[in-house]
Amino acid sequence: MGLARPLQQLIQELGRLPGIGPKSAQRVGLYVLRQPEADIRRLAALLVQVREKVRPCQRCGNLTDEGLCPICTDEQRDSSLLCVVEDAVDVLALERAGYRGRYFVLNQDPRRGRQPVLEDLDLKGLHRIVSEDQVREIIVATNPTVEGELTARFIARAMETSGVRVTRLAHGLPVGGDIEYTDELTLRRALEGRQTL
Amino acid sequence: MGLARPLQQLIQELGRLPGIGPKSAQRVGLYVLRQPEADIRRLAALLVQVREKVRPCQRCGNLTDEGLCPICTDEQRDSSLLCVVEDAVDVLALERAGYRGRYFVLNQDPRRGRQPVLEDLDLKGLHRIVSEDQVREIIVATNPTVEGELTARFIARAMETSGVRVTRLAHGLPVGGDIEYTDELTLRRALEGRQTL
Repeated sequence: MGLARPLQQLIQELGRLPGIGPKSAQRVGLYVLRQPEADIRRLAALLVQVREKVRPCQRCGNLTDEGLCPICTDEQRDSSLLCVVEDAVDVLALERAGYRGRYFVLNQDPRRGRQPVLEDLDLKGLHRIVSEDQVREIIVATNPTVEGELTARFIARAMETSGVRVTRLAHGLPVGGDIEYTDELTLRRALEGRQTL
Repeated sequence: MGLARPLQQLIQELGRLPGIGPKSAQRVGLYVLRQPEADIRRLAALLVQVREKVRPCQRCGNLTDEGLCPICTDEQRDSSLLCVVEDAVDVLALERAGYRGRYFVLNQDPRRGRQPVLEDLDLKGLHRIVSEDQVREIIVATNPTVEGELTARFIARAMETSGVRVTRLAHGLPVGGDIEYTDELTLRRALEGRQTL
């Protein structure tokens, strides 16, 4: 096809990554040629290292290259708060938002489809943290989708007898959003959840 | 920041690649965790191999991992046709379009800004191929931009005394495009270049 074979193969492999179309793959392929060799070697080594070393935390399911993740071992965390998220990237988002409790990451296999497989949820692991950390509140931060809603209700029901308060992230207008372009369901939720000024 | 350090670093490095935003970088980072280890090793090895081995062809500037690129050494090519392109990705596009002549890749350093540095153009290399291959027509396929136009005219002028025909790719409506949304310059060019049915 005209280009050097390793470059063609690289472009093909890059194009298989999620969110990277054929155009981006080409651009990245050519970019690699122009970067210092040390930078590309570092990127390559990181790819292998991540694949080899990073695993879900034994306790909370967050991603770590040790047995326990940095959040589970951090004594400064407010262990009475436990935030349940679908995926480890959600941990990043909540950290950025200033949350300082601990997490429980569901890690549902995305290859099993969009439907949450409720019987696969590690309720035992969740109960274990709740009792070990003397959790007072579980904040369910699953995505605001039908599936996330289902999972949230399932968890709330499973925790009913534990005496722990189970809450859900508020629905409403995104900051910087536009009422005119907000879908009616979100707007209805925003109305229902209105706050006194 | 909550996630395993190597994964954080990988996400950061991925986010530096062109066309990959922070969200895509996160998605790719997590995707790496779920792929077979052999696949990730292959991707990492390809990155290093491309950076180490792939160079511009000594003759035409196309990218290759040998001295001469596969197109320069392909005897089946129509060597009387020479297509001048800005970048090696343009070779891929023209190959897909069915072009079967040879190429001359300008490889202008994109870090030098958008302005073509005409004095940097390898006119000597171009003249060499023209005489070695007994080229009859040079098709200038620089991008349809002000800079590409400038480069095209510069090449046409440089070839004036050589007796070689210099042509330019046609301007006009993109196939599948919409006249209503076509900019006026393109439409004017499409009118000027109209063809008998």
